[in-house]
Amino acid sequence: MNKLGNILNIQYPIIQAGMAGGPTTVQLVSQVSNAGALGTLGAGYLTPDAMRQAIRAIKESTNLPFAVNLFCTSMQDDWGAVKEVQSVLNPIREQLGIPVPNKIPTSLDFVEEQFAICIEEQVPIISTAFGLLPTTYMRIAKEAGRKIISMVTTVEEGLQAEEAGVDVIVAQGSDAGGHRSTFNVSEQPMGANIGTFSLVPQMVDAVKVPVVAAGGIMDGRGMVAAFALGASGIQLGTRFLTTKESGAHPAYQKALLASTEESTVITKSFSGRPARGIRNRFIEQMDSSQIGPLPFPSQNTLTGDIRKRAAETNQTDYMSLWAGQATRLLKAEQTAEEVIRELLDEAEKVQGILFR
Amino acid sequence: MNKLGNILNIQYPIIQAGMAGGPTTVQLVSQVSNAGALGTLGAGYLTPDAMRQAIRAIKESTNLPFAVNLFCTSMQDDWGAVKEVQSVLNPIREQLGIPVPNKIPTSLDFVEEQFAICIEEQVPIISTAFGLLPTTYMRIAKEAGRKIISMVTTVEEGLQAEEAGVDVIVAQGSDAGGHRSTFNVSEQPMGANIGTFSLVPQMVDAVKVPVVAAGGIMDGRGMVAAFALGASGIQLGTRFLTTKESGAHPAYQKALLASTEESTVITKSFSGRPARGIRNRFIEQMDSSQIGPLPFPSQNTLTGDIRKRAAETNQTDYMSLWAGQATRLLKAEQTAEEVIRELLDEAEKVQGILFR
Repeated sequence: MNKLGNILNIQYPIIQAGMAGGPTTVQLVSQVSNAGALGTLGAGYLTPDAMRQAIRAIKESTNLPFAVNLFCTSMQDDWGAVKEVQSVLNPIREQLGIPVPNKIPTSLDFVEEQFAICIEEQVPIISTAFGLLPTTYMRIAKEAGRKIISMVTTVEEGLQAEEAGVDVIVAQGSDAGGHRSTFNVSEQPMGANIGTFSLVPQMVDAVKVPVVAAGGIMDGRGMVAAFALGASGIQLGTRFLTTKESGAHPAYQKALLASTEESTVITKSFSGRPARGIRNRFIEQMDSSQIGPLPFPSQNTLTGDIRKRAAETNQTDYMSLWAGQATRLLKAEQTAEEVIRELLDEAEKVQGILFR
Repeated sequence: MNKLGNILNIQYPIIQAGMAGGPTTVQLVSQVSNAGALGTLGAGYLTPDAMRQAIRAIKESTNLPFAVNLFCTSMQDDWGAVKEVQSVLNPIREQLGIPVPNKIPTSLDFVEEQFAICIEEQVPIISTAFGLLPTTYMRIAKEAGRKIISMVTTVEEGLQAEEAGVDVIVAQGSDAGGHRSTFNVSEQPMGANIGTFSLVPQMVDAVKVPVVAAGGIMDGRGMVAAFALGASGIQLGTRFLTTKESGAHPAYQKALLASTEESTVITKSFSGRPARGIRNRFIEQMDSSQIGPLPFPSQNTLTGDIRKRAAETNQTDYMSLWAGQATRLLKAEQTAEEVIRELLDEAEKVQGILFR
């Protein structure tokens, strides 16, 4: 066990990223933890009931530590440009055969209840995206003996996280798939996008807590490289999306396996927050319209019916296809446990052949 | 000597990037080669006479292999939007006290003469940016026993380079400073920007020739990481800009040493081709104007007087401050030889502590 393992009480310094919106099934999270790594439930979009249910199911499936990932950012809606944005979305709804909504939905803010459930349900590790836990939550979590992981995209954010008392920092490079964890997206609308290779050593030099590398890590080569750069652990998201336990839509998994390093873009079109995903028709239509998008969470709430219908009808053109920049290294038909074993075996070998 | 060393006949698998426009002095190139790595003259903007003079001076300073880097892209001017662009540039000229040019300059295309000089002067290694050597040049170079290195930004470009017969591929990640080497910038206006961490292993899996990693590599950690990812060598540009032998403007070097991982952007505003540099007033004025820029090389030719005057008057606001994303790792007051020794010493140590 290295220093990350000691803090999180896990055997291997490997974290499965807390991907919100479905991919992180109970089976995925518990199998990753049972394999000696850290499984993470991506709870950002879960209702309190669904979240509690998932946490209890995970605890029934593993006695080992797991994490629950929460969104720590304002959930205040801003519908300012909703008319203009609907003028882009309604033709898409028509095309997909979805009724045009007669009223504007409201984004639900679950984080207070979600946090309370993490404490009640004895969740050992809480990880955060988009920002830090509020001070009071941080104190409660610490007093309850929980470990806190925060994902950051700049050295400055890393220093803020350390100052706030987080136990582990995940340095998310621009190679990463999904949402950028950048704290202040009004200052950095497309997020801070520092390559994983550049971000990790600069973060390691700046903070004392262990740094976990995230973004573009897919195999044992990446694992060894991340440690060489000074990381104490690695976090993988995309690599787990095509495992047998992944909850990612089959058409999404197919798109991932067919994609290359050139397939992705960083877009705000689905959620209002910058995220890296495979370029598709929805992104092109939204971006070329030069309209909106609305800020997070409003854009995410407003596009929910479109993404839902796209999934029901297997139309990847209108799904969010979050993916990192190293998808040529993806494999199909593996279990999450096989992925972790393979990472460790490859890393052993890579270490041996360095410079040969 | 690893396989890269065998092909290029160098002791250490380290390449000093061929940064055009002044930084790669005769002293820098020859000292790097004398230290057992590969020095590169960035000849892109040199007149044939200046280039021949530099090559002869390098040969007087070292008996070891060195490289000359050429631009391989169309040098055809396109002045279509010159009036509009001048409307942005002329107020800047006024502010800097430069006369408004009464005629449009013409971009000079030296590559044919430059290539001929490389052959005549027995330049052992020719490296290319922006594209590949024309087929006839490639045949002549091969018949003359020269080695060819091409810098690429995607797996597809790497496969093209291998097909064309290059001996070594430099995989330039988006972390890299300076111009993106993307071949087709009409298709990818801001370049292909794949993080170094993601690009290297995907390139290594796709081609048979040795792959050199470039972008964000600053120290022994980066060297070990690049090899772990499958690279056979590393290329460093930014790290050499602040060495004692660097020809980079002192004010530019100061800006580099004061910058962070958040300081840079990819911009076409100086040259018409996408390049990563420290955000400054010129970039902000050009980008916020929403006008132009002209394509390369016309934009570069048109902004030449502004960059020249900015340098003469130490105004970094109007210089091109090319830089990668890991500038927190820069050091001052080192010789190029000290940088190479340090890289090798650090790499030794890093290898020993992996996973500990």
